[in-house]
Amino acid sequence: MGKPMTMTQKIFAAAAGLEYVEAGQLISAKLDLVLGNDVTTPVAIKAFQAMKTPTVFDKDKVALVPDHFTPNKDIKSAEHAKMVREFAYKHEITNYFEVGEMGIEHCLLPEKGLAIPGDVIIGADSHTCTYGALGAFSTGVGSTDMAAGMATGYAWFKVPEAIQFVLTGKPGKWVSGKDVILHIIGMIGVDGALYQSMEFTGEGVTALTMDDRFTIANMAIEAGAKNGIFPVDEKTLDYIKGRTGRAPKVFAADSDAVYSRFIEIDLSTLQPTVAFPHLPENTRTIDQVGEVAIDQVVIGSCTNGRMDDLRIAASILKGKKVKKGVRLIIFPGTQNIFMQAMEEGLAKIFVEAGGVFSTPTCGPCLGGHMGILAEGERALATTNRNFVGRMGHPNSEVYLSSPAVAAASAVAGKIVSPEEVM
Amino acid sequence: MGKPMTMTQKIFAAAAGLEYVEAGQLISAKLDLVLGNDVTTPVAIKAFQAMKTPTVFDKDKVALVPDHFTPNKDIKSAEHAKMVREFAYKHEITNYFEVGEMGIEHCLLPEKGLAIPGDVIIGADSHTCTYGALGAFSTGVGSTDMAAGMATGYAWFKVPEAIQFVLTGKPGKWVSGKDVILHIIGMIGVDGALYQSMEFTGEGVTALTMDDRFTIANMAIEAGAKNGIFPVDEKTLDYIKGRTGRAPKVFAADSDAVYSRFIEIDLSTLQPTVAFPHLPENTRTIDQVGEVAIDQVVIGSCTNGRMDDLRIAASILKGKKVKKGVRLIIFPGTQNIFMQAMEEGLAKIFVEAGGVFSTPTCGPCLGGHMGILAEGERALATTNRNFVGRMGHPNSEVYLSSPAVAAASAVAGKIVSPEEVM
Repeated sequence: MGKPMTMTQKIFAAAAGLEYVEAGQLISAKLDLVLGNDVTTPVAIKAFQAMKTPTVFDKDKVALVPDHFTPNKDIKSAEHAKMVREFAYKHEITNYFEVGEMGIEHCLLPEKGLAIPGDVIIGADSHTCTYGALGAFSTGVGSTDMAAGMATGYAWFKVPEAIQFVLTGKPGKWVSGKDVILHIIGMIGVDGALYQSMEFTGEGVTALTMDDRFTIANMAIEAGAKNGIFPVDEKTLDYIKGRTGRAPKVFAADSDAVYSRFIEIDLSTLQPTVAFPHLPENTRTIDQVGEVAIDQVVIGSCTNGRMDDLRIAASILKGKKVKKGVRLIIFPGTQNIFMQAMEEGLAKIFVEAGGVFSTPTCGPCLGGHMGILAEGERALATTNRNFVGRMGHPNSEVYLSSPAVAAASAVAGKIVSPEEVM
Repeated sequence: MGKPMTMTQKIFAAAAGLEYVEAGQLISAKLDLVLGNDVTTPVAIKAFQAMKTPTVFDKDKVALVPDHFTPNKDIKSAEHAKMVREFAYKHEITNYFEVGEMGIEHCLLPEKGLAIPGDVIIGADSHTCTYGALGAFSTGVGSTDMAAGMATGYAWFKVPEAIQFVLTGKPGKWVSGKDVILHIIGMIGVDGALYQSMEFTGEGVTALTMDDRFTIANMAIEAGAKNGIFPVDEKTLDYIKGRTGRAPKVFAADSDAVYSRFIEIDLSTLQPTVAFPHLPENTRTIDQVGEVAIDQVVIGSCTNGRMDDLRIAASILKGKKVKKGVRLIIFPGTQNIFMQAMEEGLAKIFVEAGGVFSTPTCGPCLGGHMGILAEGERALATTNRNFVGRMGHPNSEVYLSSPAVAAASAVAGKIVSPEEVM
């Protein structure tokens, strides 16, 4: 028997061709996927060109998703999208997704089977950590690292230490993955897992849907983590079924693996949780929110733009109207999710309620477009960051919540628990 | 018997409280509606405030539709939308349409029964002439005129001369209102009807659907006209049924009314028509287009974002795929049209074909957002203007066509007749 390893250590050992890796060790890992979007890829393309590499290491292992400022917001974003498109065509990138075929990168890649258990994935986008939900190692990198990854198929990593989150119990009716991760960030802070792996484990994991897990892994970076990762179970394997021809590499942490910290969370004790401006760690449970009137509600994004999210939002909005003076804007994660939401009648519910059902795009999450805030305006969003000016004017405010709380709040015109409108 | 009058003269005479008005006469007409959007209303609000009028002349007769840069494109557009919203709330404007309740102004107002036969409507948007389809007088004005209209309920007009367009015959399968108006503008030029009324008449009118008529009246301004106007018939009265509590005022031109020019058009001879850059008058029939590859197709806008338009586009796109490398972006005119398109399965066809189905907004038509062109890119659009840089980069190109030609061209990747892909 070798020395015990965490899940991330095991993935890294395999990807580095080593029997054992330890926390703090520098390794060169083989990459299964290199991701970029319309904001970061143009910078990576310039760096790639400077490397004088004739082409990408593997045209099937690069994914380019123009999702941030598309459909093109302005001339600048059009030029960026064009640069990505031309690069994709020149290098015959298999997984280039044009406007109309695409979605928000971190919703799209799992859907397309481009992230599966055991993969090592880097992406020039901070929320690339999302794929940890599938038992993959994935992390956000800079555009230069993306360029090097596209050129070589390898990346250097310092093997992270890990925090073990032992989940127990089942979440209550209105508690979802978003509440779990907001609760955690509220507890440990936005640097509480700095350059560490957040390893989720315990029987509580089985109570979480895949969409819950995507949301939780997505926001690992908001606690400063290098990655967040879930064990591979039946739900994971069900999810990837039919999406990929590749065999998943299932790694499990050793029971005696070394962790920097253990944190136990009884999911049954959690409440809907809201992050106040201007950090995701400024959390309050819904009963402590007080009177917070809102101008805009945003449901969607790479954090909460999946079917679970739209279904629960629709279940609350059905037959109700958005409060006068509130704008409700819904961003499904992908074109498939858009379609599914139409087929299930959710899109109809949203529009009947007075909401906007948008084509997939990152939209206002990062202050991009399609729902920017004016001075003094306040939004409740299911997105992942509520930094100063994140969604618009420096004197606007963003509160973060689950889709359930967001939908209920759109009806109430202020931040409330779903129970208050049902 | 009084002196003979055109349809526009009769509407003006009634609105001015006069028995007769003649071309060239200056009159003050009572307004039935004053319209503004998120681009023009902020300027009008400042002018209105300078007038020190306590409030608008009639809170039911002002319509404010934030449709151009909404959902808010950026901080500046968010500030403008906020200014409109606050004005609407302060003056208790009945017909203020929030994001989620709204649509593109010139699709929305007829749908809401805010434009009916005999109305006199001014709007701070050049395509306000759309409502001529309903036998109303409507025209675009500047923001200052909008402000004066909001304050007083009256506006000064110089009664226009009129050109009579006598329509005969029935258009062929792939010929729609857009082809009719492009044909006319190609014939008379972008100043061919300068400050005149384009009065459509003849038995050919009965062959045109209401959506055809909206498209034709919408583009009267592209021939320089003050307004475009259709006779009121069964189709008109059917259209307004259930939309308004007001009684239509049906005016018909006298048979011996004076026109500056008569133009007869046999609709059965028309072909699908395309306007080449950079003016709507640069028209060619589809057989003379030659090889024009395109990067983007835009279907929608106040010109062609109605059900007829979406239905014919879907009938062509059904079961087909947008050509690789082409972006297809569809903008339904209103939330009701969005819903109807979902219910009829059109939205599904668009997304399955690889198109974007957007929430209603003016989008890229005026270079706003949601589909801006990069340098050297070429779009085919069902919009109304193809001026230099209209949809983005000064070195981009916009071609104008009907939804049928646009849909077919999205499949072909170049401008083609629908027949070529069916």
